[in-house]
Amino acid sequence: MNLTLNDLEDYARGAALLGAGGGGDPYIGRLLAEEAIKTYGAPRIISAQELDDDAVIISVAMIGAPTVLIEKACSGDDIDLLIKAMEARLGKPIDALMPIEIGGVNSCLPLVAAARTGLPLVNCDGMGRAFPGLEMVTFNVYGCDISPVVMTDEHNNQVVIDTDSAAKAEKFARSVVGEMGLSAMLSCYPLNGKQLKKWGVHGTMTLALELGQSIRLGRNGDNAVQALLSALNQTDYYSPARLLLTGKVVDVERVTRDGFSFGHCLVQSFDGEKEVNLSFQNEFLSAKSQDTFLATVPDIIAVVDSDNAEPITAETIRFGQRVCVIATSVPELMRTPEALAIFGPRCFGLDTDYLPTTTK
Amino acid sequence: MNLTLNDLEDYARGAALLGAGGGGDPYIGRLLAEEAIKTYGAPRIISAQELDDDAVIISVAMIGAPTVLIEKACSGDDIDLLIKAMEARLGKPIDALMPIEIGGVNSCLPLVAAARTGLPLVNCDGMGRAFPGLEMVTFNVYGCDISPVVMTDEHNNQVVIDTDSAAKAEKFARSVVGEMGLSAMLSCYPLNGKQLKKWGVHGTMTLALELGQSIRLGRNGDNAVQALLSALNQTDYYSPARLLLTGKVVDVERVTRDGFSFGHCLVQSFDGEKEVNLSFQNEFLSAKSQDTFLATVPDIIAVVDSDNAEPITAETIRFGQRVCVIATSVPELMRTPEALAIFGPRCFGLDTDYLPTTTK
Repeated sequence: MNLTLNDLEDYARGAALLGAGGGGDPYIGRLLAEEAIKTYGAPRIISAQELDDDAVIISVAMIGAPTVLIEKACSGDDIDLLIKAMEARLGKPIDALMPIEIGGVNSCLPLVAAARTGLPLVNCDGMGRAFPGLEMVTFNVYGCDISPVVMTDEHNNQVVIDTDSAAKAEKFARSVVGEMGLSAMLSCYPLNGKQLKKWGVHGTMTLALELGQSIRLGRNGDNAVQALLSALNQTDYYSPARLLLTGKVVDVERVTRDGFSFGHCLVQSFDGEKEVNLSFQNEFLSAKSQDTFLATVPDIIAVVDSDNAEPITAETIRFGQRVCVIATSVPELMRTPEALAIFGPRCFGLDTDYLPTTTK
Repeated sequence: MNLTLNDLEDYARGAALLGAGGGGDPYIGRLLAEEAIKTYGAPRIISAQELDDDAVIISVAMIGAPTVLIEKACSGDDIDLLIKAMEARLGKPIDALMPIEIGGVNSCLPLVAAARTGLPLVNCDGMGRAFPGLEMVTFNVYGCDISPVVMTDEHNNQVVIDTDSAAKAEKFARSVVGEMGLSAMLSCYPLNGKQLKKWGVHGTMTLALELGQSIRLGRNGDNAVQALLSALNQTDYYSPARLLLTGKVVDVERVTRDGFSFGHCLVQSFDGEKEVNLSFQNEFLSAKSQDTFLATVPDIIAVVDSDNAEPITAETIRFGQRVCVIATSVPELMRTPEALAIFGPRCFGLDTDYLPTTTK
């Protein structure tokens, strides 16, 4: 299949939802993808099954604080340099590209890269959502090397990191991105076809597109949010999904530190009787009512406009918005004990075990 | 020639002097070199003239805050990895090694690397002294590329930086070394033989050895400091050299910030009538009497024990020490307008033009 200009708005909207409030501004990502598709044509989307076991697949992403990504996008040359540098480092040609996460700008950027290079894009990712850390990827959970990690910026600076620890790679990359102006292009976890087939979260590009379509179609009906919840519950990956609260944003606290955007946001029901407190580190990490956790990572906590179900990122959420707070499950691959050791609640300093989202 | 075990103490002492108070602890460097020479044999020292014009020469150094270098040395494996990684990146075998600076630990570490690998070591460096920044090198002044810059640590982490700005490379390296525990192995400015012959500061390893010998021999006479000054004044590079003040250290202020060791140190004459205030950023940058600059970078400001002329680093200087403050010139190559634009006083935030050391 191809992902065409007409699909972009739906795709970016769906990916923004799966971005759990993070992954960078989906609007910026969409504009970049639009521009690239207009210039170079629509990239071909393939399934991992179409790849040879020894095919070479690399991810293409931006790293940085979403606060900065909003204002400092990529130039295109930095993407070309990224792929060229990774190819040089691997010493073999690259067969396909993939998103490392299916959220926000990083779901759209691989479209830009695929359009520019003519390489196919694999319908999968390594998170089934967005996460703030490079180590928080299924490929790391299940033993694939993160290295080499290649980073480039708009001044054609290039940094290549080799380490056997994905957590350490995250620290190196985070220190380098500080010198790249808090946003940079990044490629990591170069995989072969066999690894990708086994440890990828498959079909997530198509799922993002379908979720975006459901929201759009839901707007013609009574309740766009309900349409979204139904669509989520029809997927294998994101079911069960449920509405935690509908209400108004009454407090937002946000700080950019160590290359991340940290903060809290309080949503109050219109009658003032219920509150949900959301914490975030780029992405929403937890939803709490008083002292009780309602949902935690790795499940997706998303905030959408209560009227039209448009996803709202942690970066753009603001006082007075009328929103619905949604929690959805994530793929099985992301909920194993091994996975929770890498991106469970305690990895983010939350004092709770993982509470799977239920339909209660 | 070979640099043997018997030469090491003199060599390290001379290099500590040329280190201008910085370059890391020369004692640590000497111990590492001793160990390597005992295990692998003494490295062969050659002149740049012995190299083919297309020979490949790389520098081997440690980067970090001297405060940390004192306690966290290299493992040896990180040196091997460094050279291997640079070789892989360049895609051609390395013919010789060189020190990037002739000061402190970085004058001795190339001995370790040469002993371990069996590669010859070129009798030259890129500073004729030590400096705190990777861009402060003759090779950068005269247009040689700093990239690729390779960094490794004792956990076998490896980072390769490519940029066309040496100042930017310094910033990247400084951010990476923070994640490597504030000290790391580094190689940069891979050169060909032609470049090295033209832009190297030649003969500085031999000069360091000779200066160290002069200090040792001077101790048998009346005045070790005077013997050192005579020796300096007999070199082409470090003449004129003069004594700025003999006295007691009465104040030291030191802080480790951004991967550097910054500070001030006040030396007062024994009669209390004269004072010299030294500022440092790893290395001594300036010597001032009241508001008058007596000497500034790139000239070498060194502090030695007033009794035996043993060089004292900015890291180990302390209240009550009886010292001589010495200023010496640097090679012509380091005093051109192009050179002063890279490591003249204003590059360190000093509010003065360069004041060449005179014999006044």
